[in-house]
Amino acid sequence: MSLFSSFFGRGNKTSAPVARDRLQILLAHERTGDGTESDLLSKLHAEILQVIKKHIPVDQDKVQVKLDRGNSVSMLEIDIEVPQLKSSDRP
Amino acid sequence: MSLFSSFFGRGNKTSAPVARDRLQILLAHERTGDGTESDLLSKLHAEILQVIKKHIPVDQDKVQVKLDRGNSVSMLEIDIEVPQLKSSDRP
Repeated sequence: MSLFSSFFGRGNKTSAPVARDRLQILLAHERTGDGTESDLLSKLHAEILQVIKKHIPVDQDKVQVKLDRGNSVSMLEIDIEVPQLKSSDRP
Repeated sequence: MSLFSSFFGRGNKTSAPVARDRLQILLAHERTGDGTESDLLSKLHAEILQVIKKHIPVDQDKVQVKLDRGNSVSMLEIDIEVPQLKSSDRP
């Protein structure tokens, strides 16, 4: 969990004044290999967003994406503000 | 218990002796609303796994899923061991 703890612990989420839900997605790809680069996270990014959009209304302006490429670990963060979900909103 | 915890690698990820990559996915849904329950993470879980399987070979035995439901934050953790990716392995 240490990999994720800083991501979800950062900032001061509790002070957000807007009544919106947040969906945060963190993908971490830890490579043990000899440096053979995989662009896995970039590939997954767009498709996972598509999956999410099937279920909730996503305003593209409210999506923040951050990709960190490391030698052995690459991390993709997707942070989405979504309107509060009601039963009637669900597709 | 230290014997088991080190064997299963949950505690010390960096010393994993097996030449497998790891893909970790964490989804956190933070709700600001009045408790209207959304089963968003459960819905996303299966579909995100399908997306991943399109790109990498996933052994179902190597997938660990953990779902924590909280009053305001629910978290879904998916931990996948994957064979090292080579160009020829990619679909």
